[in-house]
Amino acid sequence: MRILFINPVGHSNWDGVVEEYLEEAKNDNTQVDVVSLEKGPHHLEYHYYEALIGQELLNTIKAAERNGYDAAIIGCFYDPFLHEAREICQEMVITAPAESSMQIAAVLGNYFSIMVGRKKWIPKMERNVMEYGFGERLSSFRSLDMGVLDFHADEDFTRQRMIEEAKAAVEEDGAESIILGCTVQSGFYKELQDIIDVPVIDVVLASFKHAEYLVDLRNRFGWGTSKVGGYEGPPCREIKDWHLEEQFAMKGLWKE
Amino acid sequence: MRILFINPVGHSNWDGVVEEYLEEAKNDNTQVDVVSLEKGPHHLEYHYYEALIGQELLNTIKAAERNGYDAAIIGCFYDPFLHEAREICQEMVITAPAESSMQIAAVLGNYFSIMVGRKKWIPKMERNVMEYGFGERLSSFRSLDMGVLDFHADEDFTRQRMIEEAKAAVEEDGAESIILGCTVQSGFYKELQDIIDVPVIDVVLASFKHAEYLVDLRNRFGWGTSKVGGYEGPPCREIKDWHLEEQFAMKGLWKE
Amino acid sequence: MRILFINPVGHSNWDGVVEEYLEEAKNDNTQVDVVSLEKGPHHLEYHYYEALIGQELLNTIKAAERNGYDAAIIGCFYDPFLHEAREICQEMVITAPAESSMQIAAVLGNYFSIMVGRKKWIPKMERNVMEYGFGERLSSFRSLDMGVLDFHADEDFTRQRMIEEAKAAVEEDGAESIILGCTVQSGFYKELQDIIDVPVIDVVLASFKHAEYLVDLRNRFGWGTSKVGGYEGPPCREIKDWHLEEQFAMKGLWKE
Amino acid sequence: MRILFINPVGHSNWDGVVEEYLEEAKNDNTQVDVVSLEKGPHHLEYHYYEALIGQELLNTIKAAERNGYDAAIIGCFYDPFLHEAREICQEMVITAPAESSMQIAAVLGNYFSIMVGRKKWIPKMERNVMEYGFGERLSSFRSLDMGVLDFHADEDFTRQRMIEEAKAAVEEDGAESIILGCTVQSGFYKELQDIIDVPVIDVVLASFKHAEYLVDLRNRFGWGTSKVGGYEGPPCREIKDWHLEEQFAMKGLWKE
Amino acid sequence: MRILFINPVGHSNWDGVVEEYLEEAKNDNTQVDVVSLEKGPHHLEYHYYEALIGQELLNTIKAAERNGYDAAIIGCFYDPFLHEAREICQEMVITAPAESSMQIAAVLGNYFSIMVGRKKWIPKMERNVMEYGFGERLSSFRSLDMGVLDFHADEDFTRQRMIEEAKAAVEEDGAESIILGCTVQSGFYKELQDIIDVPVIDVVLASFKHAEYLVDLRNRFGWGTSKVGGYEGPPCREIKDWHLEEQFAMKGLWKE
Amino acid sequence: MRILFINPVGHSNWDGVVEEYLEEAKNDNTQVDVVSLEKGPHHLEYHYYEALIGQELLNTIKAAERNGYDAAIIGCFYDPFLHEAREICQEMVITAPAESSMQIAAVLGNYFSIMVGRKKWIPKMERNVMEYGFGERLSSFRSLDMGVLDFHADEDFTRQRMIEEAKAAVEEDGAESIILGCTVQSGFYKELQDIIDVPVIDVVLASFKHAEYLVDLRNRFGWGTSKVGGYEGPPCREIKDWHLEEQFAMKGLWKE
Repeated sequence: MRILFINPVGHSNWDGVVEEYLEEAKNDNTQVDVVSLEKGPHHLEYHYYEALIGQELLNTIKAAERNGYDAAIIGCFYDPFLHEAREICQEMVITAPAESSMQIAAVLGNYFSIMVGRKKWIPKMERNVMEYGFGERLSSFRSLDMGVLDFHADEDFTRQRMIEEAKAAVEEDGAESIILGCTVQSGFYKELQDIIDVPVIDVVLASFKHAEYLVDLRNRFGWGTSKVGGYEGPPCREIKDWHLEEQFAMKGLWKE
Repeated sequence: MRILFINPVGHSNWDGVVEEYLEEAKNDNTQVDVVSLEKGPHHLEYHYYEALIGQELLNTIKAAERNGYDAAIIGCFYDPFLHEAREICQEMVITAPAESSMQIAAVLGNYFSIMVGRKKWIPKMERNVMEYGFGERLSSFRSLDMGVLDFHADEDFTRQRMIEEAKAAVEEDGAESIILGCTVQSGFYKELQDIIDVPVIDVVLASFKHAEYLVDLRNRFGWGTSKVGGYEGPPCREIKDWHLEEQFAMKGLWKE
Repeated sequence: MRILFINPVGHSNWDGVVEEYLEEAKNDNTQVDVVSLEKGPHHLEYHYYEALIGQELLNTIKAAERNGYDAAIIGCFYDPFLHEAREICQEMVITAPAESSMQIAAVLGNYFSIMVGRKKWIPKMERNVMEYGFGERLSSFRSLDMGVLDFHADEDFTRQRMIEEAKAAVEEDGAESIILGCTVQSGFYKELQDIIDVPVIDVVLASFKHAEYLVDLRNRFGWGTSKVGGYEGPPCREIKDWHLEEQFAMKGLWKE
Repeated sequence: MRILFINPVGHSNWDGVVEEYLEEAKNDNTQVDVVSLEKGPHHLEYHYYEALIGQELLNTIKAAERNGYDAAIIGCFYDPFLHEAREICQEMVITAPAESSMQIAAVLGNYFSIMVGRKKWIPKMERNVMEYGFGERLSSFRSLDMGVLDFHADEDFTRQRMIEEAKAAVEEDGAESIILGCTVQSGFYKELQDIIDVPVIDVVLASFKHAEYLVDLRNRFGWGTSKVGGYEGPPCREIKDWHLEEQFAMKGLWKE
Repeated sequence: MRILFINPVGHSNWDGVVEEYLEEAKNDNTQVDVVSLEKGPHHLEYHYYEALIGQELLNTIKAAERNGYDAAIIGCFYDPFLHEAREICQEMVITAPAESSMQIAAVLGNYFSIMVGRKKWIPKMERNVMEYGFGERLSSFRSLDMGVLDFHADEDFTRQRMIEEAKAAVEEDGAESIILGCTVQSGFYKELQDIIDVPVIDVVLASFKHAEYLVDLRNRFGWGTSKVGGYEGPPCREIKDWHLEEQFAMKGLWKE
Repeated sequence: MRILFINPVGHSNWDGVVEEYLEEAKNDNTQVDVVSLEKGPHHLEYHYYEALIGQELLNTIKAAERNGYDAAIIGCFYDPFLHEAREICQEMVITAPAESSMQIAAVLGNYFSIMVGRKKWIPKMERNVMEYGFGERLSSFRSLDMGVLDFHADEDFTRQRMIEEAKAAVEEDGAESIILGCTVQSGFYKELQDIIDVPVIDVVLASFKHAEYLVDLRNRFGWGTSKVGGYEGPPCREIKDWHLEEQFAMKGLWKE
């Protein structure tokens, strides 16, 4: 199967690292590609930044489906445009880090904590927690008080902060597992897991393996995204008639 | 005060009607403008369509703030990009139809029903109902089984369907008021209200008057959007450094 | 429009202050009156006190409607008899501080904290938070550990306590705005807002402007309290036949 | 133990019937009295009517405590002034029909339906269901479309309607027991229970036996109403100083 | 009436103490027996231990019904097999400590805290709190960090820890009453209650008196467990045909 | 990897069918075994039946871990003893049909319906829906009014009933996918899916593939069941000291 991991930012700095990471994590019969966007902000901490990349992200996803990919992963823990992506794909599987990692955490233990970079992120992430149904499983958000671009600036410092907050999450808040609430926190989970002795979910890996899992379910049993109801997709005819292809750079993506 | 109502679609067919409608509804000291987008789909029934208009919608909003508007209204009952719009504005008030109308309905009666065009709309709208806190107030969604562009094709038919569903909402579901869950259902509320004898909320009017109200609160008491936490806005420096202005057609919108 | 603000206590000490306060806050075409009750406790911290003033409060409200008022405000953050008041009025708008201020706070930010006088108040107020639908928006209650009658005894001390607790609400609890949970905390919001730099809602002002807003909606669009369902009012005939007019000092209030 | 059942209405028509009913239901060592109010509406279908009887109801309760009663029952399924009554009593147990019967129903089966007289009653009763914690246990409200004063006008008709609705509640809504949601529906439960073959809760009996039970717990183990927090009572000194005794006809009720 | 209290553990060390305790607490016409199991773990802190005792516990309960008992109490605060026990009994009342004590606490005050032995217990107990409907009433769990078998090893130490945590629950968490969340915490409530001055619920007593109460309701009014829906019992024929009697040591328990 | 599917019933009639089914569904490197219990009821519709099989089920699971299995699946849609099984295993993955299938359905669409055999099953299953966090995703339960042993008695009839109810779930209740809420409904999903045109989840397959997925996550990333908190397992020493091995036929299962 072919899977596309999208770093929905306007630089390709993380693509190589993520690709290596996923190459190691993939099944034998999986082919993985990692792309980022042609333009856009360097991180998505602000919701405006998310909105800006919506068009290119979704067209990248639609193009991936057209190009035969089996799944696409939206590589940001806000899960931006997850519903929209499911709506526009007929066959392709879509996953995103928050949904994927919370489903795993809910199986591994009773309560989990989410480690965020900054408190700014919490309201949107908590809305996602509620929407995904895990409100009663969330023991706490723990903030590192670091921005996305700081995580790999001084990795020792980051690691130290993560250990402090993860310990507090377990001992004070009752967490039974920890979700690292940003794709750029990737790389730290294993060491942290050894020290804290509870599962620490790397959300890049979680969303990637979840994608492989769902593609397998789709291929074997036909369990793909339901196209009845909320994920019913837009009609080609409207897209053509309204010249959306030209307006939104999606030439060739929509065919009957 | 100056208020901008945005029809977030790629045609201006509705602008005149809405402007007349709001001219009649406005306070004396309010100046109202109605705009639509330069490009985009003709309605927003699909979430993909919403995503496509995000960039232009938000830049229109940011420009409006820069141009001295006091409020902008996002004219679609999905409330697309409401949080994002609040995030990027320093002073300007943002409202949107679903939030505004549910707050009113929650005061006028104990339970309300929302009249949608098609069942497709329900999942996203129900997520909004839950997020806004009115899950226990929602008596039902009632679907007209009509698309946005059908509402004014045969107004007698539309009116007839609305009467049927509104009556059922009151008599069978326990609704004490009705929300017309689409800005394009505008124009029907008064007649319907007379027939059904419960308040029928026109969401164009609701979001517009809510905007006037919130601007007044801001001007008098300084109660504007909190810029601490989830609505903390992105730093100008990032936007400049990353060349987002050029990439996303927002030249001149972001200044320190 | 004519609006009546009711201090539902048995002294008129606050009437002058509130009236001045509202005179400054009102729209040009609003006429505001402030009254208190002929008898009753000096504050409503205890629910028994609320119950005692029910009859006179509601009859004052019914009389106000009969006398042509457009709205009445129940001036206590417990929102006593809010549902009852809506039930007995045919046309008049009713608002109350908790409902009005939470609706505003829910728009200004994602989470709010409520500053109470004493912990005793919390259970009833939390029931209201839940009922109004804002349970997931409440970041905390913060108690000043002061009674209603202490707030203006030593205003410097009160101010100091408010600053301490508001800061903690923002920094520790994640509040994005603060609601001053008592009408007698009026007067402090502006200074506090400047210091804390998040919106601080004065609930006297909130309920008053909300009333103006709702009257305007009613006058323009006919969106008044739904008289179908929970707010269906009692029949005049019963009130006459059972001699309630004589028994409960409501002579002349109920006419077919 | 001595228990007072209060029909909180301004006539004594039901007192005899209820007294007989309770005499049969009481424990040997229980002495039961039934009283109604000196003035007031003949039923409490409207929330205004509830408010009117608040003062006399609560003073009757306070007097009962002073006169050595062990418990008082507020005989209306809206549970009016339940929190207030618990607040003013130091020792006396207070029960009310909705709380008592839902606690029983939640033990007897997984889901229960509440049979109301008119749809008007539902919003307030549903608020109580939510507050008491039984929202997920409620299978439905079923309305007889009859007023309180109609229940015993044509008992055959009432019985027939009850059977219809109870059957539908069990077969269509999944109810495992039925709560007769009005004290004046008393007398029908046994017959209905035999026909429908699920428990049918008479709320007069439920609240009465619950009172006996709680008095026993209080006497044996000291488990009385907590006077710390929400049920902390008002200080005598305030009541005296503010002349509430004279104003609200409570002479002699409040002593240090 | 005859009531059986079951210590669902494989030793009889606690039977004598509990029996004395209940003898003092029982009504005159109640005959109480206390039994433990023939085999099994010495406490039920682990859910596996609960599972192990399921068969003998339920057969003991079924035998008790057959032997004419009116009620059986499952003596563990996890309430193990409560639903199962209600399912297999036709007439006999079943109670369990968590359900019984939370219903009482919900009446005595607005919020309660549960004192557990170890944090390990919390997830399952919180699931019960949610299921029973008291999620909004729970102020906190407080852990003594002691195992079941430690409570009576050094009673002074236990008492000291209970006082510390109960005080913190009241002062910091807002608890208005305390539930001692283990049957083996029995014996401490009275002293604790005197010191903390809020009700402290002993769950052995709570479940026992609740049983007496429910038997009385069943005897007087026929309000027994609903046998329609979730508590519909298994058919005798299946049990016979499948030789469950021999397989699970329940000879003679199931007869048409 | 080695996976054990357990039919937790006292006959092996279904083992062959399930094994064939899973052989076809498994990954290349998976070895699957299907077992049933030595004794026990023939289906688990009654909760008592579940309780009876607890000991053998859990010991089978513990033995499987000891014998090197990577995962065990509890083959009943009530998910009996899921928490207990996770508690006793150190390394082995445990899945169960309801949890596994709801996680999948929540990704494939916004709302799902669960098709049950009899209404009797609903209360326990709804408790699971709530506990797993999918209460807002559940569109309905639909009952076939057939027992577990009837599903394959007349497959044409069963198929017809399933089509009827699935269609109603989609068209009337808003379901976007269907979960076949019993492992014995296996075999029907594909045909049904073709006819109804929404995903139809076979819960045998769902729980099996979920197990493969979780084993892979465990092996690659160390994300196994958290042994801190609710799933902390019992100490070997207690099991030995209390002679549980002899009492509960678990010889050799528990070693330090």
